[in-house]
Amino acid sequence: MSGIIPQPLEELITLLARLPGIGERTATRLAFRILNGDPVFADALGRSLSSVHSRILRCQICGYFDHESTCGICRDQRREESTICVVASVQDVMAIERAGGFRGRYHVLHGLLAPLEGIGPDDLPLDGLLKRISEEVQELVIATPLSVEGEATAHLLAQVVRRDFGERVKLSRIASGMPHGGELEYTDQITLGRAFDGRTPI
Amino acid sequence: MSGIIPQPLEELITLLARLPGIGERTATRLAFRILNGDPVFADALGRSLSSVHSRILRCQICGYFDHESTCGICRDQRREESTICVVASVQDVMAIERAGGFRGRYHVLHGLLAPLEGIGPDDLPLDGLLKRISEEVQELVIATPLSVEGEATAHLLAQVVRRDFGERVKLSRIASGMPHGGELEYTDQITLGRAFDGRTPI
Repeated sequence: MSGIIPQPLEELITLLARLPGIGERTATRLAFRILNGDPVFADALGRSLSSVHSRILRCQICGYFDHESTCGICRDQRREESTICVVASVQDVMAIERAGGFRGRYHVLHGLLAPLEGIGPDDLPLDGLLKRISEEVQELVIATPLSVEGEATAHLLAQVVRRDFGERVKLSRIASGMPHGGELEYTDQITLGRAFDGRTPI
Repeated sequence: MSGIIPQPLEELITLLARLPGIGERTATRLAFRILNGDPVFADALGRSLSSVHSRILRCQICGYFDHESTCGICRDQRREESTICVVASVQDVMAIERAGGFRGRYHVLHGLLAPLEGIGPDDLPLDGLLKRISEEVQELVIATPLSVEGEATAHLLAQVVRRDFGERVKLSRIASGMPHGGELEYTDQITLGRAFDGRTPI
């Protein structure tokens, strides 16, 4: 095939195939559809991709993102400053916002403890969080995932906060149990065990 | 969610979701992976997309594409000028080149007769093809698809060539029959019928 596909198209296919979940075949199909499609669209998508890193900033307070250096949530005066929800990623903030209900602020760790990948306690940027707690925070909701890494991170956070602030700060961990609509028959043992451990009186 | 996703990212997701076969969910996942990934890659992909239309030209002779205005196949002096294979799209040229074997040149129609979509005989750009035939061509292999539109286009082409050049030009249509490895049990009736109609003596 070499020499048959023009080099600019070959290059586009190679780059598209580097996107997650897109193989050589899909990349080729996409490239042809783009080439046979509207040049204005291709140019708009191209400029959007080229500029997205420089146009999106990480919030200097909480680590969430925005086109400004302080994010929309931290700028929103209606949100309680005294409650912070700690999450692993910006996607987690979005998930919680979609669910609605939480009216506090966030702190995004951009990672979790992962000793096997060489990410230890010193690699997690906790300084910013501890500074925020020392200033205004009364309650910390730890919403890292219910995975091994998420639980280890939650444990570390609780330790550090207790060490630095004693009982001044209310600490909580999001509940673990059966998901909504979950069938006992198809639920894994760990989830079921947690649902029993965390049973609440009625 | 509005106000929660920064506008440049929202814009990228909307544009990605306009790609064929990519829905809102996949677009969101891709956008985040791009944002969390290498800015050099995002920029390279972006510039490739923005420039692909202007960097790829349609061959002035055969309608295939290249970064030059005469394509690599038409520039290749080793390919027979006297045999032209007529196809619907550039992808079809690539498929035939992948298969190998054909050593003539091509003519890409960039479309087929499609009366239901308002594409009639006058909308197919046959002038360039007829001019080529008048100059040098001795044989025409019609390789439009075996669909209703492809067959109708093949029929029209044959008519026009016979009208203008009589028997001077050898005309052929690619064979229709059972695909390689095809099981009779799972073959559709039309294909099976064609395989019988086109049976060759042994």
